[in-house]
Amino acid sequence: MAGSTYGKLFTVSTFGESHGTAIGGVIDGFPSNIEIDFEFIQAELDKRKPGQSNIVSQRKESDQVQFLSGIFEGKSTGAPIGFLIPNEDAKSNHYDHLKDQFRPSHADFTFDKKYGHRDYRGGGRSSARETASRVVAGALAKLFLKQKGISIHGFVSQVGKIKMTDEAIQEVDFNLIEITTVRCPDLILAQEMEKLILATRKNGDTIGGCVSCVVQGVPAGLGEPIFDKLHAELGKAMLSINAVKGFEIGSGFSSAEMLGTEHNDIFKSDGSTKTNYSGGIQGGISNGMPIYFKTAFKPVATIMQSQPSIDSAGNEITLDGKGRHDPCVVPRAVAIIEAMTAIVLMDFWLRQTAQK
Amino acid sequence: MAGSTYGKLFTVSTFGESHGTAIGGVIDGFPSNIEIDFEFIQAELDKRKPGQSNIVSQRKESDQVQFLSGIFEGKSTGAPIGFLIPNEDAKSNHYDHLKDQFRPSHADFTFDKKYGHRDYRGGGRSSARETASRVVAGALAKLFLKQKGISIHGFVSQVGKIKMTDEAIQEVDFNLIEITTVRCPDLILAQEMEKLILATRKNGDTIGGCVSCVVQGVPAGLGEPIFDKLHAELGKAMLSINAVKGFEIGSGFSSAEMLGTEHNDIFKSDGSTKTNYSGGIQGGISNGMPIYFKTAFKPVATIMQSQPSIDSAGNEITLDGKGRHDPCVVPRAVAIIEAMTAIVLMDFWLRQTAQK
Amino acid sequence: MAGSTYGKLFTVSTFGESHGTAIGGVIDGFPSNIEIDFEFIQAELDKRKPGQSNIVSQRKESDQVQFLSGIFEGKSTGAPIGFLIPNEDAKSNHYDHLKDQFRPSHADFTFDKKYGHRDYRGGGRSSARETASRVVAGALAKLFLKQKGISIHGFVSQVGKIKMTDEAIQEVDFNLIEITTVRCPDLILAQEMEKLILATRKNGDTIGGCVSCVVQGVPAGLGEPIFDKLHAELGKAMLSINAVKGFEIGSGFSSAEMLGTEHNDIFKSDGSTKTNYSGGIQGGISNGMPIYFKTAFKPVATIMQSQPSIDSAGNEITLDGKGRHDPCVVPRAVAIIEAMTAIVLMDFWLRQTAQK
Amino acid sequence: MAGSTYGKLFTVSTFGESHGTAIGGVIDGFPSNIEIDFEFIQAELDKRKPGQSNIVSQRKESDQVQFLSGIFEGKSTGAPIGFLIPNEDAKSNHYDHLKDQFRPSHADFTFDKKYGHRDYRGGGRSSARETASRVVAGALAKLFLKQKGISIHGFVSQVGKIKMTDEAIQEVDFNLIEITTVRCPDLILAQEMEKLILATRKNGDTIGGCVSCVVQGVPAGLGEPIFDKLHAELGKAMLSINAVKGFEIGSGFSSAEMLGTEHNDIFKSDGSTKTNYSGGIQGGISNGMPIYFKTAFKPVATIMQSQPSIDSAGNEITLDGKGRHDPCVVPRAVAIIEAMTAIVLMDFWLRQTAQK
Repeated sequence: MAGSTYGKLFTVSTFGESHGTAIGGVIDGFPSNIEIDFEFIQAELDKRKPGQSNIVSQRKESDQVQFLSGIFEGKSTGAPIGFLIPNEDAKSNHYDHLKDQFRPSHADFTFDKKYGHRDYRGGGRSSARETASRVVAGALAKLFLKQKGISIHGFVSQVGKIKMTDEAIQEVDFNLIEITTVRCPDLILAQEMEKLILATRKNGDTIGGCVSCVVQGVPAGLGEPIFDKLHAELGKAMLSINAVKGFEIGSGFSSAEMLGTEHNDIFKSDGSTKTNYSGGIQGGISNGMPIYFKTAFKPVATIMQSQPSIDSAGNEITLDGKGRHDPCVVPRAVAIIEAMTAIVLMDFWLRQTAQK
Repeated sequence: MAGSTYGKLFTVSTFGESHGTAIGGVIDGFPSNIEIDFEFIQAELDKRKPGQSNIVSQRKESDQVQFLSGIFEGKSTGAPIGFLIPNEDAKSNHYDHLKDQFRPSHADFTFDKKYGHRDYRGGGRSSARETASRVVAGALAKLFLKQKGISIHGFVSQVGKIKMTDEAIQEVDFNLIEITTVRCPDLILAQEMEKLILATRKNGDTIGGCVSCVVQGVPAGLGEPIFDKLHAELGKAMLSINAVKGFEIGSGFSSAEMLGTEHNDIFKSDGSTKTNYSGGIQGGISNGMPIYFKTAFKPVATIMQSQPSIDSAGNEITLDGKGRHDPCVVPRAVAIIEAMTAIVLMDFWLRQTAQK
Repeated sequence: MAGSTYGKLFTVSTFGESHGTAIGGVIDGFPSNIEIDFEFIQAELDKRKPGQSNIVSQRKESDQVQFLSGIFEGKSTGAPIGFLIPNEDAKSNHYDHLKDQFRPSHADFTFDKKYGHRDYRGGGRSSARETASRVVAGALAKLFLKQKGISIHGFVSQVGKIKMTDEAIQEVDFNLIEITTVRCPDLILAQEMEKLILATRKNGDTIGGCVSCVVQGVPAGLGEPIFDKLHAELGKAMLSINAVKGFEIGSGFSSAEMLGTEHNDIFKSDGSTKTNYSGGIQGGISNGMPIYFKTAFKPVATIMQSQPSIDSAGNEITLDGKGRHDPCVVPRAVAIIEAMTAIVLMDFWLRQTAQK
Repeated sequence: MAGSTYGKLFTVSTFGESHGTAIGGVIDGFPSNIEIDFEFIQAELDKRKPGQSNIVSQRKESDQVQFLSGIFEGKSTGAPIGFLIPNEDAKSNHYDHLKDQFRPSHADFTFDKKYGHRDYRGGGRSSARETASRVVAGALAKLFLKQKGISIHGFVSQVGKIKMTDEAIQEVDFNLIEITTVRCPDLILAQEMEKLILATRKNGDTIGGCVSCVVQGVPAGLGEPIFDKLHAELGKAMLSINAVKGFEIGSGFSSAEMLGTEHNDIFKSDGSTKTNYSGGIQGGISNGMPIYFKTAFKPVATIMQSQPSIDSAGNEITLDGKGRHDPCVVPRAVAIIEAMTAIVLMDFWLRQTAQK
């Protein structure tokens, strides 16, 4: 209820601050008898972790997850899975000056207003470091979904004004995603994006971008009509990720310009559709076509330039650019988008199963 | 869990199909001792109801709500509020031919796959008729929020390619919204939009659009970090509305093109900000600035033209355009957007209060 | 969250006061394609309704349930089932004198303190009239459970000091329950109980009692360890029924006097046990043996004698005995106990199914 | 949903098995700015821990809790509180023989049926070791409730046939509870109970008992009518504790024998009542009087005698008595009863606050 738990049947509760001892969580509702591929889970974490390339934050974290329960002799037992990721490179003294200062477009001000007392070090609870716990849960969900024939592929489709076309997004060669540092499967755009990010960093600035995601193999029937529509829940999950400002499913905002005669997805005799403007979901329920959606990320609020701001007493101050941050968040965000997608789909899978 | 309930502390459960006896719901968690302004509630329903103008569906429903409990001597008692809206103009025989047919880009196919057995008349449970119940709950939430100084204004900001600018959206004269049939506060654009809708109807076609919403008077502190961020929940609520394909908060998708130095909202000494790209929310928590967001609606799937489709046996068929439907959904959707916004904000208000 | 909804996957939300227009509810999560036996549902309501015999309240209610949604052509559709039961014989003027008065051991005082404003007529929301809605939901759950081979039998095992032995409770001929007005399958004790109730009524007094319940056919595996143990949820469900003061599963309070060597249920080779002190549940999970439990009801607080009390200003007053009430609640409570048992078991059935 | 989380606004999620690396949990919804008294929390754990006296299990655990998040500079931040308790004296090899064997009246059989794969060492997830995590959460809740003037006192009121009277339970000198090893405030009965437990242990047997609990200082208004009645939720919480078979509030099972004229609690002019058969709750809502209830515990299933049983293949086997277990669970259970009571009350406190 205080917002740290996601899901109804497959639930993920996370805890931890950017510069505390450790982050971690409890995963409940993971079925028993599923083999846990620890290397796969660690590989998922590695896609999100800082320091992986020259276009991301240089904080050094090995992000080694420790499982504490719910797994016995290599397989899940159905009991809750508790886990920890220690914080290793927490340079808290970098943040001492922020004790009473509010960074623009960060959550310092709102946490202060809501809670009165906060761990200001590195953004505390509001830091995107928390998302590492989501990746652990998402990796477990992926292991489950893989057994059901479901695959999830996120990729960078936009950095600044450099963007893939709508058509290209639906025809991606997923094998190309991890080839590039920026995780964009269009190799030419990928080079441009990387250049743009490096130039932006050099300026002490940051830049926004988009992550697209395609889910294949989802059978018709997942999603609960009315309030818990599949794309509504996907939207919530994506919008819960730090720095996300927008979400669209299928044709998204471009549908606002379209006519019904253009937009309707005509059926083939096997129940699939000739076009997929719906993005694989009708009435909140999957229709068996690929699910695709796009998520917009704002530019990271921490910049390496001095900015005017205020302190908690309302005094005007000047903030220097300090700390280790990402010039552009989308390359690392791909892992988080995939993780949240897996968590949502697994939850709906269990909900659908319950009704059989 | 089957998706017909929204909210955690202020909960709205709806029931009913397009052509059943009645639709309605149960509202739980509405505090006691609040005066119920029945005329206001009915006026909210009137903004959503069909037949209100020449640019919406001509189904005739008086949409008179009947309250069955939870209100005594004109004030709420804290007990659940049960209510009904009878279905009056349900021409079910219009739909007999649809028993075994799947309309393109409707939920017929997915409901059939999920449930096996469905009320096909007028879309049954998947019909937007259900949203009348949301407007009842939203009107009650508005009565509560008004006491707290919170106002909500939705309006049409786009129909087809006719759209208000981002700047204009933030400087709307709310008094102009209800002056136009289409509910766009830019009177010149409004005229163009109405013309476009009428022309589209004449062609037997439909067209998409966008509804923007501005919320004023929300104090800093509403929203729960991590998974239940205020804008994430708003996004889910909007995406749960029929025909919605996209949601963006504040700068939204345009933020993907921006630099951090442009996008950061610099504080004034009173804690307000000079710009409001954040849309009134930082880290998932309201910051006291106006909250604004935009929602994209696809063109209505029912068109007055014949279309190819399939039946439940996979046979190819031709569907004629029949029934009474909206050429463009956004004028009526304004009331639904406002209702869901009110429901979300009231729920978070109670959640925040609980932590004091 | 305000307490009017029960269940996680099979949810029942009720509304309505004793003397309002109607009571009713919304049932969500009932699977599709289940045939609805309307006569059976009405028969269940008839077991609970007032006026059925000379040992219960003489309020006259036909308790005819009206289904408004979720059922199409005689079968469930998976959509929420809305329903109503009109209040017919609501003699509200009987209660005018109670507007500012607190009846001893009723909820008048606590509702007043919690809500400030209340529907005082006939106890308003706190009246056991609300339980008719539970019986509707329970009857639907029974239809589902019957398909799974599960049967539920409640019966009166105690009125005042007249009680069945623990051994007798485990060897009941369920066919005898409905033969007696008091619903006790021991025909000799049943006669004594009826005499005692009639004598108590004659004195203008009321008397307590117990209802026992035996569930057969539950497979091993229902129930969720730790907090949602099957018997813990059964306990909550029973304690949520008006006038219930105690709950025990299997050996219950008598287990406090026993030794481990006596109490352990020794296995037979087929996994069943020689004794059943556990009451069919180990570690919160059903073990395949019959589940049995007992629930204690206090004497009804409304007596037909004058009593001292206070009004809302703290003045001492004298209350006369008025209204139509039960001298002993257990004969009618059997239907409610069975209904709540069915609701709990159906919810756990769906939860267990989700994990497969 | 899988049962490892308790509460709606104040939520406690636990994880961990008896012989894993550690147990622990995540507490969400604990308000910010509350000073954390670490010594108090540890003292609560010490009341539950094994090895504290000669009448409890001799497993040696220091039960030192490590907090990982949600506390900053000695005060809560409103962020989730993650915590760990390492398992130190886990003699797993004691349990190797149990891999395929089912101990009578333990959860081995039901976990096997439900999950297929289980951590059998020391009962795994079904072990009462899990309750140490509840004591941590309960201690935090107590710190919150203390600020509100609420105190909770559990004590042993029965061991075998040695029991305190109903009258004595309502007039306990709480200072005497911790004086005795068995935690019974009647010093003479306490001696008899301790003798009985030692004699039972000497026989290799175990014995049941009861814990009573009195809560003082609860204002009128806590509890949610209908399904989430305060005593219903207390009942569920108590029945979720290992080995509990019964729960009664106020007059409990003895109310079944009483007349309304005896049982009604007559008001005094200040709203308090002359008697307190209701146990401080009417209609599911606290009335300001002390809340008292009693919980029955079965004899511990592990006995130090050989017993017949079966293995997972259905073969008849003989189990030897091994391991380190309690001859009687109630002295240690007092801390768990108090913890769950505190958790329930804190949750209802927040729920009530939300409605103001």
